[in-house]
Amino acid sequence: MASLSPLAMPAQRRLRTSARNMLDGIVTAVVHGPINAEVGLLVNDSIVIDALVTNSCIAALDIRPGGRAVALINASFVTLLADTPGLRLSARNLIGGTVVDVTDSPVESEVVLDIGGGRELAAIVTSHSRRELDLVPGAQTLACFKAAHIILAAEY
Amino acid sequence: MASLSPLAMPAQRRLRTSARNMLDGIVTAVVHGPINAEVGLLVNDSIVIDALVTNSCIAALDIRPGGRAVALINASFVTLLADTPGLRLSARNLIGGTVVDVTDSPVESEVVLDIGGGRELAAIVTSHSRRELDLVPGAQTLACFKAAHIILAAEY
Amino acid sequence: MASLSPLAMPAQRRLRTSARNMLDGIVTAVVHGPINAEVGLLVNDSIVIDALVTNSCIAALDIRPGGRAVALINASFVTLLADTPGLRLSARNLIGGTVVDVTDSPVESEVVLDIGGGRELAAIVTSHSRRELDLVPGAQTLACFKAAHIILAAEY
Repeated sequence: MASLSPLAMPAQRRLRTSARNMLDGIVTAVVHGPINAEVGLLVNDSIVIDALVTNSCIAALDIRPGGRAVALINASFVTLLADTPGLRLSARNLIGGTVVDVTDSPVESEVVLDIGGGRELAAIVTSHSRRELDLVPGAQTLACFKAAHIILAAEY
Repeated sequence: MASLSPLAMPAQRRLRTSARNMLDGIVTAVVHGPINAEVGLLVNDSIVIDALVTNSCIAALDIRPGGRAVALINASFVTLLADTPGLRLSARNLIGGTVVDVTDSPVESEVVLDIGGGRELAAIVTSHSRRELDLVPGAQTLACFKAAHIILAAEY
Repeated sequence: MASLSPLAMPAQRRLRTSARNMLDGIVTAVVHGPINAEVGLLVNDSIVIDALVTNSCIAALDIRPGGRAVALINASFVTLLADTPGLRLSARNLIGGTVVDVTDSPVESEVVLDIGGGRELAAIVTSHSRRELDLVPGAQTLACFKAAHIILAAEY
């Protein structure tokens, strides 16, 4: 009964931004460092997004485990990777998906991934890379992005 | 007499970069943390931009209150938002503006805002988002960007 | 005998990503701060790239002086500058190069630089800026990007 899951009721439907990716979810953890805090955000049954924001933002946005927040992820901050055995990355977020849509221009291409649970993630990559990685509908790929590149939003 | 205002005399006119946004201004504050410093930069009568740079950069660029600096803001780092009552964001910079120009391509669009005081701010957003937010000349919108994404420049 | 140089044997040839810039090199230094570490990566005879990643990533990726790593640099994170006497920047990485290729679209252009030692660096800039800076094949330019924008990769 997915319709009864808390993730099925987006609390943020009023929010409208140009961030191609707005993933709302439930805060699973807030780990404070001296300046920044790392926030875990569960956006579907299996994906927890890591966001790095300042401690003062945590207070201002009232971010706490069990609460809701929206991760704004600029599509041009998302890097796509072919699955590479043994690969290790400094980026905190690494999500697998299936290409469902591609829009090309001479310089850049938009690649939309199905990441499961009815969630999509869009990436803007160079058209050069889009061709090199053979990113066409149906292809499997990995998307990575840095925790520090995410903007969190909340509503009163 | 805007022509007598310090902001009317750009000290940085020799600087030429591909950063679509080069906003020069007067440093209003420098707040040092253990590693990074937060710099306030007044770019017109009412807008103070927050930039986060390392403490060592503050020394190397001789950034101090009352001095001048230029904020380089990559247009693709700017996210546009419809005005949303109760919205709270982790991004430090949130600036209102009026769309004055739009250039479309199949994948991305450039949206130029008038942010007051003769200053403009350009954003590159996906064409998908440009249409969804109905960003056309005359539309009001909010621009947000992270303090850590700004590059500061100074000249000897 | 360039073919005997360690830089001539890319250890990472299996890695395939949409990051337009994948510069593999030899780690020259790792300087730990309280949270982040600064990593120097020699990518040709003269260019050391500075990357800022978390201390925990250094351990997870087994990054150490003398070892290898790959810097992933999103082309849209690269800002190009005309050479400006007296210019000082907060961005840690500033690399000179010669334009070898340009691809235009109505909104954005891809500019590819030869940065020496058989290495290239691609930048996505607005077409507006591409024209303003007169970035055509043969032109000299400076490329800058923030240490914090780099993703490091390693393989087991």
